[in-house]
Amino acid sequence: MIATENRQIRLAARPVGLPKDSDWTFASEPIAKPSAGEVLVRNIYLSLDPAMRGWMNEGRSYIAPVGIGEVMRAGGVGRVVASDDPAFAEGDLVGGTLNVQLYATAPAKTLKKIGDDTLPLPAYLNVLGMPGMTAYFGLLEVGEAKAGDTVVVSGAAGAVGMTVGQVAKIKGCRVVGIAGGPEKCGYLTGTLGFDAAIDYKSEDLNKALREHCPKGIDVYFDNVGGDTLDACLARLGRGARVVICGAISQYNATSAIKGPSNYLSLLVNRARMQGMIVFDYADRYDEAEREMAGWIKAGKLVSREDVVDGLDTFPQTLLKLFKGENFGKLVLKVSEP
Amino acid sequence: MIATENRQIRLAARPVGLPKDSDWTFASEPIAKPSAGEVLVRNIYLSLDPAMRGWMNEGRSYIAPVGIGEVMRAGGVGRVVASDDPAFAEGDLVGGTLNVQLYATAPAKTLKKIGDDTLPLPAYLNVLGMPGMTAYFGLLEVGEAKAGDTVVVSGAAGAVGMTVGQVAKIKGCRVVGIAGGPEKCGYLTGTLGFDAAIDYKSEDLNKALREHCPKGIDVYFDNVGGDTLDACLARLGRGARVVICGAISQYNATSAIKGPSNYLSLLVNRARMQGMIVFDYADRYDEAEREMAGWIKAGKLVSREDVVDGLDTFPQTLLKLFKGENFGKLVLKVSEP
Repeated sequence: MIATENRQIRLAARPVGLPKDSDWTFASEPIAKPSAGEVLVRNIYLSLDPAMRGWMNEGRSYIAPVGIGEVMRAGGVGRVVASDDPAFAEGDLVGGTLNVQLYATAPAKTLKKIGDDTLPLPAYLNVLGMPGMTAYFGLLEVGEAKAGDTVVVSGAAGAVGMTVGQVAKIKGCRVVGIAGGPEKCGYLTGTLGFDAAIDYKSEDLNKALREHCPKGIDVYFDNVGGDTLDACLARLGRGARVVICGAISQYNATSAIKGPSNYLSLLVNRARMQGMIVFDYADRYDEAEREMAGWIKAGKLVSREDVVDGLDTFPQTLLKLFKGENFGKLVLKVSEP
Repeated sequence: MIATENRQIRLAARPVGLPKDSDWTFASEPIAKPSAGEVLVRNIYLSLDPAMRGWMNEGRSYIAPVGIGEVMRAGGVGRVVASDDPAFAEGDLVGGTLNVQLYATAPAKTLKKIGDDTLPLPAYLNVLGMPGMTAYFGLLEVGEAKAGDTVVVSGAAGAVGMTVGQVAKIKGCRVVGIAGGPEKCGYLTGTLGFDAAIDYKSEDLNKALREHCPKGIDVYFDNVGGDTLDACLARLGRGARVVICGAISQYNATSAIKGPSNYLSLLVNRARMQGMIVFDYADRYDEAEREMAGWIKAGKLVSREDVVDGLDTFPQTLLKLFKGENFGKLVLKVSEP
């Protein structure tokens, strides 16, 4: 059976605070046949990421905002249905910006073939995808983590955080994760081998950081911002590196963003705070992917996904990220592999 | 005539907000004769610096706080009156931590001889002293300023700011200074050769930064913190470096420090914000001093001091820094050269 209709979710309005149902429209249009140099992909898994919230806002950023009326931007993996480009053939598994829809007609040059199908497909949106690349280059290049360092990561049970902590362990660091709830914290220390996990929902963060980082923090990988960033700044060691990867606590703020009151700890500790955008490392993705795929196969690195079924659940599923409800990389499954 | 009494200003209480008269006591004690390895110095010029405010607070920092009842810490230059160390002889000009008093009895190893007396003595507390070293290493090492960069400096009519701007010009940067009032701004562009100066007291800072930094800021050297830091963060260019040298707008805050709300500009622009403490560059002071002394003699670099007379004026003179009333390096003259 060949489908003819492409179901899509489009941005209807710029959200104020958390995205609401009325910020989206469900649309349907005929599947676009590929033109020369294009490929038609049946989407299988879509990547749901905190950064999506930023793409919904008007204004200058590292990437253009999604326009009102446009299909919501999303990374994804899928299978080639038809190709008008010699680089791809029907049946190929590919990754790329496939957007929140059932079918994507995309320029071949924006797609990447998934060569190694011995690894689970969702891993290509997680450890072997943008979150993994972000963790790898953020920790090792921006954070300059090295053996013996005390590394603290927030959003530790999220896609980026889990990989940051595991790669830091592989590199010989002492790793402390910050996450919400006993289940997540137990998983970080029990299954992923973190040295400690702090449950920000039930523990005094400042006290716990003093306890678990007696010599101060060498690398703080920040995914959340807000009070957590401030608490970690207060605990920096000499020459520390703070990697600013995201600020999920602030993305839906309707008033001014809370700046880090303790930023003068950077001065006292000769420390630095540095932002990163993973795209800057695009020419080194292959290198990182090879290394991390090796670690997965060797059983050193776990790629854990939180898979939710059904394109139409997108508006509600996305909110899991901002409510701290995802456990691992949040992935939307929109068709069978 | 040989003096026998040493007049001193001691810290009486930890200030809340701006230091008050009652936070100080005026004391007098017999001049301490130097023991073996010590030198007795008659203080001539004392350095008054924003950092002093931090030294008055309790608590962990990059340097121990001044204890209650202790003579207030200050750098200074003076003349050796008596020496019990072979490295120094009566009549030598020296620099070191001489403190807010008329005479200092100091370990010889903490003093540095002033070799080149062809330059005005106050310059050794300014361009050739800690402010100059701070500007030099902060701009060139932490800020990595290079020819063609747009450099913005706040507190631009203060000791560090003036040198930052002038060294940046020497290195081929485009320089924008932020200072208070038309007299200071006119001096920065007219006498010191800054490309532009923004009067934060009368201009819209965001608008002025857009106008004077059309391609964004490459290096922002921050001496003030607060709203100025936020405005500059909003104007960063790709890969910008923010040097956190001080935060004079916040030192006397009695409520929580205002953190930079726009810190996520670091992420979008892959920029970094880094703190510095000049002491870390102590082994390179001589190199910087030689280079900057050469620039002064060549007429490329101006060392401008704001000299106030009289040890007893210290409590009021210090406040000039926090009211933005100093114009150049603030120096207290306590005896004749």
